[in-house]
Amino acid sequence: MKVVATLTLAAAAFTLAIPASAQFAKPEDAVKYRQSAMFIMGQNFGRIGAMVNGKAPYDPAAAQTSAEIVAEMSKLPWPGFLPATDKLSQKAKSEIWAEPAKFKEASERLAAEAPKLAAAARTQNLENLKAAFGETAKTCKNCHDNFRNQ
Amino acid sequence: MKVVATLTLAAAAFTLAIPASAQFAKPEDAVKYRQSAMFIMGQNFGRIGAMVNGKAPYDPAAAQTSAEIVAEMSKLPWPGFLPATDKLSQKAKSEIWAEPAKFKEASERLAAEAPKLAAAARTQNLENLKAAFGETAKTCKNCHDNFRNQ
Repeated sequence: MKVVATLTLAAAAFTLAIPASAQFAKPEDAVKYRQSAMFIMGQNFGRIGAMVNGKAPYDPAAAQTSAEIVAEMSKLPWPGFLPATDKLSQKAKSEIWAEPAKFKEASERLAAEAPKLAAAARTQNLENLKAAFGETAKTCKNCHDNFRNQ
Repeated sequence: MKVVATLTLAAAAFTLAIPASAQFAKPEDAVKYRQSAMFIMGQNFGRIGAMVNGKAPYDPAAAQTSAEIVAEMSKLPWPGFLPATDKLSQKAKSEIWAEPAKFKEASERLAAEAPKLAAAARTQNLENLKAAFGETAKTCKNCHDNFRNQ
């Protein structure tokens, strides 16, 4: 029994010991992954922005689709901000790795707002969408101001 | 009444007349959009592949997360394959635009299999995951063989 328990613990330790970086074959993939998610998110957020700013007709179904994509994308970029990528992108500020708690908090603000944007889009009411868009945009700006070079 | 009906019809026609390309500010964005979705999908599909092929320990929660992402991503690339992008990528074969019905059918095969992969991952049973992974992989290969340069 003791051997089994030891082996089980060893196996568990092995699993837990796999670093987050093992998700990516190389640091460049981590950068591409987070940038891909950000790009898809930005494209869809921009489509909603055009509608709430009167630059495109309000298309409730399209807004809903885009908002759902924004909510999904908002979860994805973060594992890509590996310390090993700190010299690979001109856009990522070193504060990402110098102040990880602050960066995490900024990402969590988006994670909290993006589902509200999707919920607002589902109401198919433009005023609701405008309000939620504004709140979500604040979380983008907050994080970009602090952690992204312009 | 007739004027109202005419205006309503005109408004509807205007909405319908917005081309799919209006989703993207420029054709390069459409290419980047589809490639971003494919990259995120490939990374997550690869993580599942490593597990089902015994190259990484089976992590049911991670597999489930990746499978859900694959299912979400499987919906996204297609609007990016605009005819205006036909010269912008070395990887995209001209058959995409020469045989649109066949290309659409190939994309729909993935759209049908990816949710099954997510459902299999949710069972947290490796054999179920292996089977669904194999079926999904066939749809990737089928489309890549016909429509992507190696």
